[in-house]
Amino acid sequence: MTTLRTPGPTIGVVGGGQLGRMLAEAAAPLGVEVVVLDPTPDCPAALVARDQIVAEFDDEAGIRELAARADVLTFEIELADQDVMERVSEDTGTPVHPKPSTLETIHDKLVQKRTLEDAGVPVPPFRAVDDADDVRAAIDDYGAPVMLKARTGGYDGRGNVPVESKSEAEDALEAVAGPAMVESFVDFEREVSVIAVEGDDEVATFPIGENVHEAEILRETIVPARSSEAVTERAHAVARDVLEVMDGRGVYGIELFETTDGEILLNEIAPRPHNSGHWTIEGAASSQFEQHVRAVLGWPLAATDLRSPTVTTNLLGDVDDERPARLTDLDEILETPRAALHWYGKRQARPLRKMGHVTLSADESASDTSVGELLERARALEDAVTFRP
Amino acid sequence: MTTLRTPGPTIGVVGGGQLGRMLAEAAAPLGVEVVVLDPTPDCPAALVARDQIVAEFDDEAGIRELAARADVLTFEIELADQDVMERVSEDTGTPVHPKPSTLETIHDKLVQKRTLEDAGVPVPPFRAVDDADDVRAAIDDYGAPVMLKARTGGYDGRGNVPVESKSEAEDALEAVAGPAMVESFVDFEREVSVIAVEGDDEVATFPIGENVHEAEILRETIVPARSSEAVTERAHAVARDVLEVMDGRGVYGIELFETTDGEILLNEIAPRPHNSGHWTIEGAASSQFEQHVRAVLGWPLAATDLRSPTVTTNLLGDVDDERPARLTDLDEILETPRAALHWYGKRQARPLRKMGHVTLSADESASDTSVGELLERARALEDAVTFRP
Repeated sequence: MTTLRTPGPTIGVVGGGQLGRMLAEAAAPLGVEVVVLDPTPDCPAALVARDQIVAEFDDEAGIRELAARADVLTFEIELADQDVMERVSEDTGTPVHPKPSTLETIHDKLVQKRTLEDAGVPVPPFRAVDDADDVRAAIDDYGAPVMLKARTGGYDGRGNVPVESKSEAEDALEAVAGPAMVESFVDFEREVSVIAVEGDDEVATFPIGENVHEAEILRETIVPARSSEAVTERAHAVARDVLEVMDGRGVYGIELFETTDGEILLNEIAPRPHNSGHWTIEGAASSQFEQHVRAVLGWPLAATDLRSPTVTTNLLGDVDDERPARLTDLDEILETPRAALHWYGKRQARPLRKMGHVTLSADESASDTSVGELLERARALEDAVTFRP
Repeated sequence: MTTLRTPGPTIGVVGGGQLGRMLAEAAAPLGVEVVVLDPTPDCPAALVARDQIVAEFDDEAGIRELAARADVLTFEIELADQDVMERVSEDTGTPVHPKPSTLETIHDKLVQKRTLEDAGVPVPPFRAVDDADDVRAAIDDYGAPVMLKARTGGYDGRGNVPVESKSEAEDALEAVAGPAMVESFVDFEREVSVIAVEGDDEVATFPIGENVHEAEILRETIVPARSSEAVTERAHAVARDVLEVMDGRGVYGIELFETTDGEILLNEIAPRPHNSGHWTIEGAASSQFEQHVRAVLGWPLAATDLRSPTVTTNLLGDVDDERPARLTDLDEILETPRAALHWYGKRQARPLRKMGHVTLSADESASDTSVGELLERARALEDAVTFRP
């Protein structure tokens, strides 16, 4: 029997970037308070959250303070330290969702892939590599190119190095600089993702999104994805299988490859709201952030259906060097019907840094609007603004 | 040429109740910061706003501090003092929107009605009254009953006293206790309202809502209103005429009577986002709060079209006496697809106090959903919860 008081329940979030900010934005109407822990004073989430504890992500004293103020702990970055969180949770009795064990599984991409493969989730061929000979052997088996991946610490394509031929093996290993794995290069038709939610005794998945990457950074998400119905169903089924493996409530961003022959292969999992799910704020019956709030609190989940075709485009730092964040020529975005601006509140722009996003939704009464057309219009909006002086 | 930095522009808001809170919720994604001034420490808006200045609404030193921190001043309560705001604005150079002169026009209901009538806005017959003889003369002219209204300070029906017969004139004047006016009782088919926005060089109106009052308190708003197309057009035309009279940018809640013969008469104006416009958060292409943010900053206005039929029901204190706010049995609301809960963060429940609201939207794919059916479902959701112990 869910009950609300003032102050409402408090979620303690390790990390206070844009995901924490949008989480706090979704929590406020529900009467749910958010306290974030982040080392950067006045981090993006600080504006909206009840409070910020300024501490490193693995600072045990800081996380203890966070646990003392919260009814449940969660995280918005994988840099959260699973051991510290587990220890604090055991000592304080404040639960963590998703479970630190899930974070541990996901932290090491090799462990992640092995665990998922064991659970019957389709993954591209992969193997651990210790040296250049192992990489070359993988090329023999999978064919060139292969993708060499750092087992830990990589995100937004960092730590991923394509290896085009055997002669590049040494250089690639040096670039990765640490424990590595090799994955077969997937000949994909498109990259899609499913935002999936594990609730108390229920699960939910949002309509699948189609992701457009450039230089391994997500540029746009298109919903609905331009996949066949059969492929869409497979993607949802894989997402539900992934949730079976994950331990603890919350939102998971599940990135998938749709191969040229219509198979679905798992790419990567983020145990948190995901960049490719920002479209849900305007495009779905509920947002991934509201779902994460509900899930970690053990509240009932919300409906996830599409409201209308939607495209989200990221506003990345288009600068050559770090400089104070100043986005100009916003009028076209502000004047476009059904275009929603989201600003992350970062003080400095850096090359390709995620500074905000714009979501463009189709008018429900114009249900024949193609996502291709929406995508073109969203790109034009993104092209109209700049962080350059 | 609109530009965004971090920190973004700051709006200083006199009043930090639920309207200020929802204003801050709408401002955050846009990178706009909100500072509120309110005498109640940790007022509803404080959770979401950047900061709260704890001061009375007419405290000049507090408003000067607010002006010093803000790019523009606005207010979310009519209790804001127009003289103080005007003086502070002149001294500090921080503009106020809407203009204090508009607040002055609206504060006195007699002045409000006279100004609007002079501008050609249709209003019910009205007149100033000084004593019981004047009230009785009004009954002779308009027929009984008439509505005796306090010229200042009334809201949510407070200060409005129906006078059924001449013999009640003295008692009614005593109840109003101050300068008063009499209005002819309008034989209305329904009460509707238009949320209208005055921008920098543009205006916008949201689809008209149908308001259901009980004991002069707004219970539900139904959108679209069940008015004919001709009546709807008249309502929009009247709203645009009202904006002509109002001075300064911002959102105006314009309450109207639809008479039994299909005429539109002005009831009252609120120079701020309005309870009857909360449906816009989920039901329209933009919300009244985002529009107010854009308008007071001089940014372009957003689209206002309906996303799908929508009903908002207010969660009022259903208690006999003041008690700590504790709303139980929320599960049905949380489990209902397209039901959105908004909690205002008030610590105490009081009889009929506005504690939150629930908006229920129709599924866009079920475009034949009648608002009558939505209204019944929304009422059932409201009936399922209680503040009673």
